[in-house]
Amino acid sequence: MREFDEASLTDAVVKRFGETPDPRLRQVMQSLVRHLHAFIRDVEPSFEEWQAAITFLTRTGHKCDDVRQEFILLSDTLGVSMLVDAINHRVAGGATPTTVLGPFYVDNPPELPLGTELATTASGDRLHVSGRVTSANGAPLANAVVDVWQSDAEGFYDVQRPTGEAPELRARFRTDAEGRYHFWTVTPAAYPVPTDGPVGEMLKATGRHPMRPAHVHFMIAAPGYETLVTHVFADGDPYLDSDAVFGVKEALVRPFVLRPPGPAPEGRTMAEPWRQFTYDFALARAAG
Amino acid sequence: MREFDEASLTDAVVKRFGETPDPRLRQVMQSLVRHLHAFIRDVEPSFEEWQAAITFLTRTGHKCDDVRQEFILLSDTLGVSMLVDAINHRVAGGATPTTVLGPFYVDNPPELPLGTELATTASGDRLHVSGRVTSANGAPLANAVVDVWQSDAEGFYDVQRPTGEAPELRARFRTDAEGRYHFWTVTPAAYPVPTDGPVGEMLKATGRHPMRPAHVHFMIAAPGYETLVTHVFADGDPYLDSDAVFGVKEALVRPFVLRPPGPAPEGRTMAEPWRQFTYDFALARAAG
Repeated sequence: MREFDEASLTDAVVKRFGETPDPRLRQVMQSLVRHLHAFIRDVEPSFEEWQAAITFLTRTGHKCDDVRQEFILLSDTLGVSMLVDAINHRVAGGATPTTVLGPFYVDNPPELPLGTELATTASGDRLHVSGRVTSANGAPLANAVVDVWQSDAEGFYDVQRPTGEAPELRARFRTDAEGRYHFWTVTPAAYPVPTDGPVGEMLKATGRHPMRPAHVHFMIAAPGYETLVTHVFADGDPYLDSDAVFGVKEALVRPFVLRPPGPAPEGRTMAEPWRQFTYDFALARAAG
Repeated sequence: MREFDEASLTDAVVKRFGETPDPRLRQVMQSLVRHLHAFIRDVEPSFEEWQAAITFLTRTGHKCDDVRQEFILLSDTLGVSMLVDAINHRVAGGATPTTVLGPFYVDNPPELPLGTELATTASGDRLHVSGRVTSANGAPLANAVVDVWQSDAEGFYDVQRPTGEAPELRARFRTDAEGRYHFWTVTPAAYPVPTDGPVGEMLKATGRHPMRPAHVHFMIAAPGYETLVTHVFADGDPYLDSDAVFGVKEALVRPFVLRPPGPAPEGRTMAEPWRQFTYDFALARAAG
């Protein structure tokens, strides 16, 4: 194969990967070549368009650092992250649907007692959250680890604030003997994904807004069960139908109900109106 | 569209790009989403494989700087660069075939008189190169700009040597009234593409060698004609059938003929054996 022309090139490249020792890597690379070449053949880029693509990818890489992952943002905004998520969580069988992890999870959050408040300094409407963690057939899961994280009322996560501050609006709870969890926080706001990089430019150039509807993140783990990574979204949010990262599922939307001042959970008496939602999470059995 | 599940997701993402103001950008993004999702659906990556892909792309971006373009190397080694080249040079009609520009071209090379030598310090077997530049129907093109660049006898370009040195093995000539060009240089060697980055790791993991067969680069420009970007490859090179960037075309291969010591072109008398090749380049008429 000495002549690499338009007709023969794709087969030649696929064949070149034919000696890949690892069969899975061979499958991935050969599929990548076929689909990437099909894309090129479909759009027939000019040399200048190819150069623009190289520049876009290079700038996307240069935007990545310890606290910013622009390629994950690209994957999210092209729907790839949610497609990978869907492919890897097919057999729900009564379990709560999953959605994207997102870039703002921080491992080993502060452990808090049930009923306490995530916010230490954040202002905004108070929000009470409660529910149960069960197996897919409804058996309560005691001592399950419930990690919670969210934006504040202005749409920012603590890691987006100036560095050196303590964790804020993120915590780890453990369910009680009946699988219950409950805590106070503030009501999160809709917010834009980061727009100061190449992905933000792509969204702008394609007429897409960068907003995500308001949500609270959950990651729930219990021995013998698949770890559940999901959000609960606020019903009525104007961006529910157009989440910039395609993360919304109907079963994850709940009303964040407005309550009047007065008696409230955990023995509180509220001077201002507050909000409340409940969500019962069901975990799938671990495979194997 | 509030439910983004495995079945509906791709159409939802394609639709989201439907309001892109520029029709070409809309076409490219919608095609990208369809082909990228088809690849994901084909290989069904695990979450860990998706993470590995994000890491690979990030490291590829971080490897790029002013003198290194790892994304172009990725495009080259996946056959994408040659496919884009082929798509953009379909109507050859007697014109010389094109091949990749490569990463080592430097604009505004030193202008040299016909017959002089590119090498100022490089050692290795001397090589005499000559030929004509014509239109596709054979009419000579006088005063055409012939840029030449190549590796040395050890396979290195000047820009890969320690910085601060003068240009070496690169020059600009102008054809004479009969469209002729001719010069002395050294015989280039086969060489590996850069292997100290993620693309090198990919080649190694897939059992591919990184070598390119020995060649001399040409970029030839004349008013009213398409600028020709191509190589001339050395016949007999062991890597002609497996160029790491898929750049070889049969019509670009020439014997680099070994000549005995004695009289040689440009009035020289050679004490050592030397080599010689000739190539006549035919340029296509510029479109429009």
